[in-house]
Formats: sequence, structure tokens, C-alpha cells
Amino acid sequence: MTSGQLFLGVDGGGTGCRAALADETGRILGEGRGGPANVVSDPDMALASVLEAASGAMTAAQEGRDLTRLTAVLGLAGANVVEAAAAFRARLPFASSRVENDVVVAVKGALGADDGIVAAIGTGAVYGVQRAGTVRLAGGWGLILGDHGSGGWMGRGLFEAALLAHDGFVEKTPLLAAILREMGSPDAIVAFARRATPADFARAAPRILDAGDDAAAQRILGAADAGIARALDHLESDGALPIVFTGGLGPLFAARLGHRYPSLIHLAKGCALDGALALARGLV
Amino acid sequence: MTSGQLFLGVDGGGTGCRAALADETGRILGEGRGGPANVVSDPDMALASVLEAASGAMTAAQEGRDLTRLTAVLGLAGANVVEAAAAFRARLPFASSRVENDVVVAVKGALGADDGIVAAIGTGAVYGVQRAGTVRLAGGWGLILGDHGSGGWMGRGLFEAALLAHDGFVEKTPLLAAILREMGSPDAIVAFARRATPADFARAAPRILDAGDDAAAQRILGAADAGIARALDHLESDGALPIVFTGGLGPLFAARLGHRYPSLIHLAKGCALDGALALARGLV
Repeated sequence: MTSGQLFLGVDGGGTGCRAALADETGRILGEGRGGPANVVSDPDMALASVLEAASGAMTAAQEGRDLTRLTAVLGLAGANVVEAAAAFRARLPFASSRVENDVVVAVKGALGADDGIVAAIGTGAVYGVQRAGTVRLAGGWGLILGDHGSGGWMGRGLFEAALLAHDGFVEKTPLLAAILREMGSPDAIVAFARRATPADFARAAPRILDAGDDAAAQRILGAADAGIARALDHLESDGALPIVFTGGLGPLFAARLGHRYPSLIHLAKGCALDGALALARGLV
Repeated sequence: MTSGQLFLGVDGGGTGCRAALADETGRILGEGRGGPANVVSDPDMALASVLEAASGAMTAAQEGRDLTRLTAVLGLAGANVVEAAAAFRARLPFASSRVENDVVVAVKGALGADDGIVAAIGTGAVYGVQRAGTVRLAGGWGLILGDHGSGGWMGRGLFEAALLAHDGFVEKTPLLAAILREMGSPDAIVAFARRATPADFARAAPRILDAGDDAAAQRILGAADAGIARALDHLESDGALPIVFTGGLGPLFAARLGHRYPSLIHLAKGCALDGALALARGLV
């Protein structure tokens, strides 16, 4: 058990959260996990999840159970809603704490202290721009009106194209024919889509990536490229900022868009937990 | 009170239904109204609505209350689901009856017995093609995956563009600036979109039509033109079929796309009730 200062970093989203405990030097002492941690959709569950993950990290580090010793930074889904983040912070047991949107800690982790752009492309698509240590977010409004180029957006586009192909309005490529065959009927596709979450749509995205030169797959990927490049072009507009792609589809688009941003695309320095811990160590 | 045959036509959708009673010559004797009539989402309510509308038409025509005298054709939302339509028909009290999708009776009303295409562009967008008296439907899969060019699709596109403009990813035209100002915040737009029905989105479509040469409005209208033309080009592919535009936005797109289909665009011969009555008179 250390006698020095202890720092907690938490990265929490709609499906689960992770916590890491570190000492003053940044050395990781232990990690823990908890359930969903969205401070808007279910703050009580988010609090339980954060405490479970924090306790797990303390136990793994053999640091006892006293959470009031900790200096914590939590990156949590929904914490861009200012009132929700403030109310959540007031319930935390830590010695001191800061609650940020999960994307902000991911940006901090990816860029460290450097200026730059993080394009987080997974189920959704959201961008963070850091300048002089301050992070501003853009995009990430969800699949109904946004998230252009994300896995959810591409998956939904695949089913949309399958229905257009069923009606003969677009060419029935092998990929679209396969989707129609597997789903059984247009009605089944419509029924699926009415229930589908962005994650459900995103599970179809690998079909697009695996379809080779299928014309429908290429059209969807090209539209995704264009949606992501539209965002990056704007965020780059007043400089040549480094760009880090994160998220499950980050490496794909780093490769696809590399020629557009020559020598600007970098690997992430660290993950969201690293970013939360770096912020926590900056709190004291 | 007539001693001859009586015919009932019903046009029913998700918000209400109308019935018309006619004699053997097609003369309308009375009309009635009822509530929602979707045979999939609420068949019990649909039955009550149809019976209320039918009884209203009988009363208006001073033809008594004996529904078992009637030969009826009902065009009802959801009746493209074959099992739902069959189960619904089995519960009807009429002497003879036929249950069709509401779009089919709208096509019959618009075209009469002629071959042609009906483009029904309102909250949604669905197409009917009649050849030798047989109607085949295309499109109309709903706003999540389809309905390209519809009022709901254009309205959703307006809010999508407003969020892109908020982030600086597209130009903030006067229309998009006005939407952002009126809605108050991007979060409010996202919250609206999560609750919004296609009809809610469609209520924003007039803003696009009234925006003159606003670049965002013109882009959305151009995309709607392209979506509708893609469907019509395919449906026209093996002939020069007359095209009738119906629905709240039908006249708009008849004007916008007229140059693309020279001398092919016609006015509707009649409404969906006319179509249902024509089919009913054909049943005996």
C-alpha cells in the first residue's frame, strides 16, 4: 500500500466502464470494471458502475477500500450535458473529482498535451479538437441526424440500399442480393430497422468492408469517406493539425483518407483511461 | 331508400378513415368518417373505425343500418401484410368485401383503369404501377430506411443540415441559422429528433419550400428530386407510362420534375375513395 497520492481515471460509456488507479509517477497500480455509465440516461446506475470499477481498481492494487483518498477524473457518456455532470459530481465520494464527456478523455489520451484533432469513428462518429490544452467537440449527434461515416451510419446505409435494390431503384449487387436473401423479405428489414440501435446497424458494417469491389459497398464507403473528410477539412481549416483516428473503424479511415492529409495522421499516444489519469494527475 | 345494390368504398390510414356509399351507377349517396384504421398496428380499432365510417355513410344516405347489404372495398394501411388483411376481412359484416392496401385504392382512384404510375409523395413516398388492372407497389418503406424525397425525409434532412452547420461542416445558410436559433441548441434538436415521427419531421418541410434560393433548401430539394426521379426512371424503364403525382407534395414535384417526363404527367382522375368504390362496383 502506497502512502503517496492516488489517482483514479475512469472511462465510461453506454455499455460499461473501466477504471485505472495510478500513483504520482503515473504507474498503473490496478484496474477495475463496472456496468453502463451514462450520467443522463441512468445516473444511479452510472454511480454504481463507477464505484464498482473504482473499488475493483483499489482491490487489484491492494490499496484497501477508502475511495475518499482518491483524486479522480471520470470521462462519462452524457457528461457534455452540464447540469447532469454537475449533479453527478456532487454525489462522488472522492477527495476531488472532475467529470468530463468520455470523448474529452479519449482526446486527452490520444493527443496528450499536443494540439490536434481526434476522429473517433466507431458505432458513432465524433470529433475532438485540442488547442492549448482545451478540447472542443464536434459531430457525434447520433444516428438519426448525424454520425456520418460511422459504423451505424454505414450499416443503416446497407439496409437502405438493399430495399432500393429490391424495388429495382438501384442495381442489385451481390452484397445487396445477399442481404435481401438473408433477411428474407423487405418487411423483415423494415421490422429490424424499427428496433435496431446504432450498434445493431454497426454490426452490419463489416459486410461492407469485406465486400471487395461490390459497387454498393464502394458507394457506401465512398460516402463515409466524404462525410468524415467534410468534418476534417473544416476542423483543419485554420492550420495543419495532427489527426488521430480512434474507435473501431479508426484504422480503416486512417488508411482510406491518408492520401488526403499527407503526413498529418498519427497514432494515438494512449487510450481514454490514459487521458483520464493524465487529467487526474493534473488536478493536484 | 334504394332497392338496388349498394357499394361501400373505404379509405383508411393511420390517422382516420373515410367511407362513401354509392349506387349501381356510381352516384355517391352519403359519406362517413371514422378513426385510425391500420390493420396491423391496431386491428380492433381499425374494425371499429371502419364500422363507424360505414354506418355514418349509411345514415347520411338515409339507407338504414343494415351493413350486411353492402358490397365493400376497403383500402387500409397495413393491408399489404397479407395475413393481417385476411384476418381483418374475416371479421367484416358486409355481403362481400375486399381488403387492399390504402395505396392500391389511391392508385385505382388516380388512374381509373388506365396503365400508369402513381407517385404518392406526402409524409412518406410510395409508388404504384398499374398494368392491365394489376397494381404493384414500390418504395414506401418508412423514414428509417426509405421514403426518399418525402416530406418527412426533407424535414429530417433540414435538421441534419442544421447540426452540420452548427459544427461548421456545412455553410450556415439563413434557413439553417433560423432553425438553430428557433430550436435553441443542438441538444434540443437531437432531443426533438429522438421523439419525432415522420409526420413531425414533415411539418418542417414547408420551411424548405418557402426558403427561396437558400443553398441548404435548394440542396435538400435537389436531393428529393433525385430520389423521386430515380424511382420514376426505373418504373418508366420499359415504356412511357402516364405519371400521376398525389399526396400533399405531389403538385410540387409534378412541377419540379415535369421537364424530365415531358407530356407524361397527368392529373389524378379521382381520389382513393373513388378507387375503392370503382373496385367495389367491379366485385359484383
